[in-house]
Amino acid sequence: MRLSLSRRLTAEALGTMLLVATVVGSGIMADRLTPDDALALLGNTIPTGAILAVLITLLAPISGAHFNPVVSMVAALRKELSVFEVASYVAAQIAGGIAGTLLAHAMFAEVLVQVSTHARSGMPQLFSEFVATFGLLLVILFGVRQQPAQVPWLVGLYITAAYWFTASTSFANPAVTIARSLTDTFSGIAQNDVPGFIAAQIAGALVALALSVWMFAKKEHA
Amino acid sequence: MRLSLSRRLTAEALGTMLLVATVVGSGIMADRLTPDDALALLGNTIPTGAILAVLITLLAPISGAHFNPVVSMVAALRKELSVFEVASYVAAQIAGGIAGTLLAHAMFAEVLVQVSTHARSGMPQLFSEFVATFGLLLVILFGVRQQPAQVPWLVGLYITAAYWFTASTSFANPAVTIARSLTDTFSGIAQNDVPGFIAAQIAGALVALALSVWMFAKKEHA
Amino acid sequence: MRLSLSRRLTAEALGTMLLVATVVGSGIMADRLTPDDALALLGNTIPTGAILAVLITLLAPISGAHFNPVVSMVAALRKELSVFEVASYVAAQIAGGIAGTLLAHAMFAEVLVQVSTHARSGMPQLFSEFVATFGLLLVILFGVRQQPAQVPWLVGLYITAAYWFTASTSFANPAVTIARSLTDTFSGIAQNDVPGFIAAQIAGALVALALSVWMFAKKEHA
Amino acid sequence: MRLSLSRRLTAEALGTMLLVATVVGSGIMADRLTPDDALALLGNTIPTGAILAVLITLLAPISGAHFNPVVSMVAALRKELSVFEVASYVAAQIAGGIAGTLLAHAMFAEVLVQVSTHARSGMPQLFSEFVATFGLLLVILFGVRQQPAQVPWLVGLYITAAYWFTASTSFANPAVTIARSLTDTFSGIAQNDVPGFIAAQIAGALVALALSVWMFAKKEHA
Repeated sequence: MRLSLSRRLTAEALGTMLLVATVVGSGIMADRLTPDDALALLGNTIPTGAILAVLITLLAPISGAHFNPVVSMVAALRKELSVFEVASYVAAQIAGGIAGTLLAHAMFAEVLVQVSTHARSGMPQLFSEFVATFGLLLVILFGVRQQPAQVPWLVGLYITAAYWFTASTSFANPAVTIARSLTDTFSGIAQNDVPGFIAAQIAGALVALALSVWMFAKKEHA
Repeated sequence: MRLSLSRRLTAEALGTMLLVATVVGSGIMADRLTPDDALALLGNTIPTGAILAVLITLLAPISGAHFNPVVSMVAALRKELSVFEVASYVAAQIAGGIAGTLLAHAMFAEVLVQVSTHARSGMPQLFSEFVATFGLLLVILFGVRQQPAQVPWLVGLYITAAYWFTASTSFANPAVTIARSLTDTFSGIAQNDVPGFIAAQIAGALVALALSVWMFAKKEHA
Repeated sequence: MRLSLSRRLTAEALGTMLLVATVVGSGIMADRLTPDDALALLGNTIPTGAILAVLITLLAPISGAHFNPVVSMVAALRKELSVFEVASYVAAQIAGGIAGTLLAHAMFAEVLVQVSTHARSGMPQLFSEFVATFGLLLVILFGVRQQPAQVPWLVGLYITAAYWFTASTSFANPAVTIARSLTDTFSGIAQNDVPGFIAAQIAGALVALALSVWMFAKKEHA
Repeated sequence: MRLSLSRRLTAEALGTMLLVATVVGSGIMADRLTPDDALALLGNTIPTGAILAVLITLLAPISGAHFNPVVSMVAALRKELSVFEVASYVAAQIAGGIAGTLLAHAMFAEVLVQVSTHARSGMPQLFSEFVATFGLLLVILFGVRQQPAQVPWLVGLYITAAYWFTASTSFANPAVTIARSLTDTFSGIAQNDVPGFIAAQIAGALVALALSVWMFAKKEHA
């Protein structure tokens, strides 16, 4: 017995908005306060990991708490969402993400709409997004199957790690990537670099799905 | 079968006192130890998030662990507390908060009673408090309904994030705001700026309450 | 059906040893790596909070995981331990703590036995130890009664906060205080200052015990 | 009813790969971003502790989530794994660990195969590895027996502490040690120093096993 779609889409938009507001806002705060880039990244990492655990705990019972088009896409491939639902989820996530960037800009007295000039290109960056999203989907697919109550904490901790172990600081989310192309602050990404990131994210998610299907297939194979 | 009001008010005053002592005390400690503002904020954030999880876990079974007048106000609007109880709670929270500032000053050899000169004004600051308190009440209202045992950790992690993603560092609490107007150290707020902060906090709480009522209304609406 | 006293004392000595080795060792590591005192304190805080949660989880089922003479003293006042057991526990804790300092010195190529010259005196320091130990015993007494499975995490998070919100960085433990008087590194304390710290710690613990007795007394009093 | 060995070995290789990619990758990221060595170590510590909790939670139901030859060795001594299984596990761990170093190098645009020149020698370093691995096995052996569901978090927190309280930053794992000898970045170890580290790790593990056997022996001894 699911909640109405309007409530589920509200949850997806709200969650993605607060997630992006945290990523962009904490990036601005950290960058303003320190000249040390590692400290700025730490001030960006800790809030992001924390808010992810919070938002997924609160909103998973309502919408599943995807906040991420590739997570919804994988849910569709697993026949958990219809095509119409996935399209609605993705639209809500993108709209919520953009609202999150605007929200952060308003709080920090920045120009509301910006265009990022932060180049994030080249194979290592794309490969980082592939690995980051592969890992994120692994956490979700293995976690939901084995320890669903732990998934909020696992995702928060995984992203905390992935900010640092990937060269791209682990966007791992097309809606967040689009939203971050609209800020010319610490966490931005130039619009030219968005399509490559999204392609790498989709590829990483599909490989994680394949691994998960193989790992949990019923028939044993020695 | 509730505990006597005197014990519940003791719990509210004690909890708010230790919360404010942590906010003010860790601010003084951090500010004395480093010239880097991001590091000082981190030394203020981590203790605050940690103590919130601890205090709510310990005192929620006794008083509900509000420590915050807008949380008590929302409880009254939801008919969980009588008007007399709310007034008593708020008085205990404000008294406890002020005691917390004095406690921190005594530990750090500061003049006991101070007047803050730390200006925190302008629309972005007020909007930040609106967002911060909206988010806090969302965590509490959605959390208590769906995962009450997790609320202490969720509030601790939410405030950890909100210190960084709002421009005001997320006071989100009228009793704490008043208490922090009495310290001219890292975490202070000038008394002229207190009323605006409190108004924004009340507004944010009411919007979160409205959203929560809509989200969990019994009648489905497609 | 309790474990034999020899195993319980081994657990107390082992736990106190690893706790002190973490406090002293991480202090040396942090102090060597950075000129920034806030960063050094953070590098001392995070390991201490983490190891406390770990050690209490592992050893509480064996000995109660006190690692702290005032905790054992309070247990005796509550008739949970006999006088002989308390004396044995305290001896094991002090011996274990001293072994922890030696262990840290050996790992960091320091002279094994040192005498601290780090003055920590004056009323604010003593008051800080009073508050720190009051808070610690509150966490333990309220926690064990209401949420015993959470106590390891609560103590770890409480000490994480107390490193920063007290001016003394929260020793809150006579055995650890004695052990830290034997290192002339970041976390040391001059031997002249040890008796005052211990007296303040005992006073703080007794006040927490009194508050706990009042709060959980059976007879209601409006 | 165990999963097939091929799936279990995949889990061991995958987990060790992602663990090493996190250690090496976050070390490169942190080292590039800051001149402060304590901050770099913090940027190395937090991701490592986080990913350990995540990987053990996800993969323990599949393979036991050893990711560490001395953990598998101890499992064999406790007759939980056959000699053939242990040999297979260790091979998968070493292969996965090396793949993790390559993965991190590819993400950070480093030369794929490197030889570390980072000397880590002398008795204090070896003694640190002995203590670190003793502690890790204590966590695992005491934890699995008493609170198996908590082990992922305990190991993550233990390693978070051990990065700082040991002079060697706590490798505590022969497969990770070998993998880290193939990177000439922040987390590397010169190949000449690898055998000593591994010997110290095996010794620490055996002492922890002996202590665990004594502590949990059925016959009480006063």
